[in-house]
Amino acid sequence: MLSWVDGQPSELLSVKDRGLAYGDGLFETIAVNAGHPLLLERHLARLAEGCMRLQIPLDLAAVRAQLLAFSQQLNEGVAKLILTRGDGQRGYTPPQPAQPRLILQAAAKPGYPATYAEQGVRLFACAARLAEQPLLAGLKHLNRLEQVLARSEWHDAEHAEGLMLDTSGRVIEGVYSNLFVVSAGVLVTADLSRCGVAGVMRAELLSQATAQGIECQVRDISYAELLAADEVMLCNSIYGVWPVRALLAHHWSVGPLTRKLQAIARDLLDG
Amino acid sequence: MLSWVDGQPSELLSVKDRGLAYGDGLFETIAVNAGHPLLLERHLARLAEGCMRLQIPLDLAAVRAQLLAFSQQLNEGVAKLILTRGDGQRGYTPPQPAQPRLILQAAAKPGYPATYAEQGVRLFACAARLAEQPLLAGLKHLNRLEQVLARSEWHDAEHAEGLMLDTSGRVIEGVYSNLFVVSAGVLVTADLSRCGVAGVMRAELLSQATAQGIECQVRDISYAELLAADEVMLCNSIYGVWPVRALLAHHWSVGPLTRKLQAIARDLLDG
Repeated sequence: MLSWVDGQPSELLSVKDRGLAYGDGLFETIAVNAGHPLLLERHLARLAEGCMRLQIPLDLAAVRAQLLAFSQQLNEGVAKLILTRGDGQRGYTPPQPAQPRLILQAAAKPGYPATYAEQGVRLFACAARLAEQPLLAGLKHLNRLEQVLARSEWHDAEHAEGLMLDTSGRVIEGVYSNLFVVSAGVLVTADLSRCGVAGVMRAELLSQATAQGIECQVRDISYAELLAADEVMLCNSIYGVWPVRALLAHHWSVGPLTRKLQAIARDLLDG
Repeated sequence: MLSWVDGQPSELLSVKDRGLAYGDGLFETIAVNAGHPLLLERHLARLAEGCMRLQIPLDLAAVRAQLLAFSQQLNEGVAKLILTRGDGQRGYTPPQPAQPRLILQAAAKPGYPATYAEQGVRLFACAARLAEQPLLAGLKHLNRLEQVLARSEWHDAEHAEGLMLDTSGRVIEGVYSNLFVVSAGVLVTADLSRCGVAGVMRAELLSQATAQGIECQVRDISYAELLAADEVMLCNSIYGVWPVRALLAHHWSVGPLTRKLQAIARDLLDG
């Protein structure tokens, strides 16, 4: 598959890269349709926010140009963008100035069963919890061992995603998705100021739902509220929206707000 | 400098490596004297423990053989060993079976001023806190953004190390060292079951101090206890033991237990 390192076709990278040594970098996973990266501005905005918080210098115009060229060549699929702080010497001290490295990798669009979107998915209840680290919360950084451990907990195809709580027991997100619940007609998604990844699809759905007059709240969600919710759904920028129909012995039906958000996501992803 | 990937001289690795994608791996930083890796068994034991907890298959005999051959070629310096889960496809799901990748990188021994060991060092008070994540606590894994952020907080040469607390305010460790305090004649180091890296020098000092009849405790240390301690010291497997002489406006003198542990470490490292 297509793979670029700093704008050149390559499948290799320096062993001195701090992305390998420390997970010192960020990534974005971007759907590409007909040569165009979808939700481009939101992906770039999150990358810029991450670079600011991790103090990684960012040439946003150059990243945009490379991503556009890469997407054109890919045409259809998923572009994974990794931006690291670049090479380092021994030790945590960030090099001054850092020379960030941009890696672009192509993958085929994942072939999820149509039933996931139509009838909803069953969530696995992950035992792995998300640690509370406000310094990294919200960022799509390269320190992802929590997700690796969580995703290792189930091997069957019956569970399409796993539910992750934080170490205090709050409902946060899926392993590779954000989560929304509908409580008393209000669309609620978790506050991600302590942990979690602030997904671009989550941000876009919040924005469009608000514009359509749907009341939205970003706040803590307890496990009890999740179980009592009228609707539960997952989202990400690759598959859009999946209803959640079950978690352990608990079941939800697919409701009207889920279908509305699903339509919004479909418009965004099918263009 | 010397660099091997899977036993072959190379400075490059696949961009598909999960060490880059997710920090999905472990590392060890090993002092090499006259061709011999120091504290070898402790480094290998920690690596094995990490592999077990992260479910990364480990061929310990092969890792040992490569490390010994690499050390012989390096002769003097620091060997950094990185073991990743190897290449992956898109997504967190670990490949079954994984084909781990072993990377060995050489560096010169760092040239710390002799005053650090003789008169002690000043600690920087890091604002970055360590998140509490029992699943990863103690491991020297590749998710090290907390240390990168902490080490970015100071740029002066006056501070040789930084003090890291956990998010609950307990005293845990330095950015690249473990910490001991002496309270009422007892040698105390932090319980690392919630966060922190269980250093091999820390383990060796605990073992040798106990054998010499020094009372040792592994338990929580409050900030107040740190300030009230009779002695404070840092250790790691490269520099041995440094007394801590200051943190902000607080000062400690260098005491007898620090000198005793320093002598133990010197014996281990100077062979």
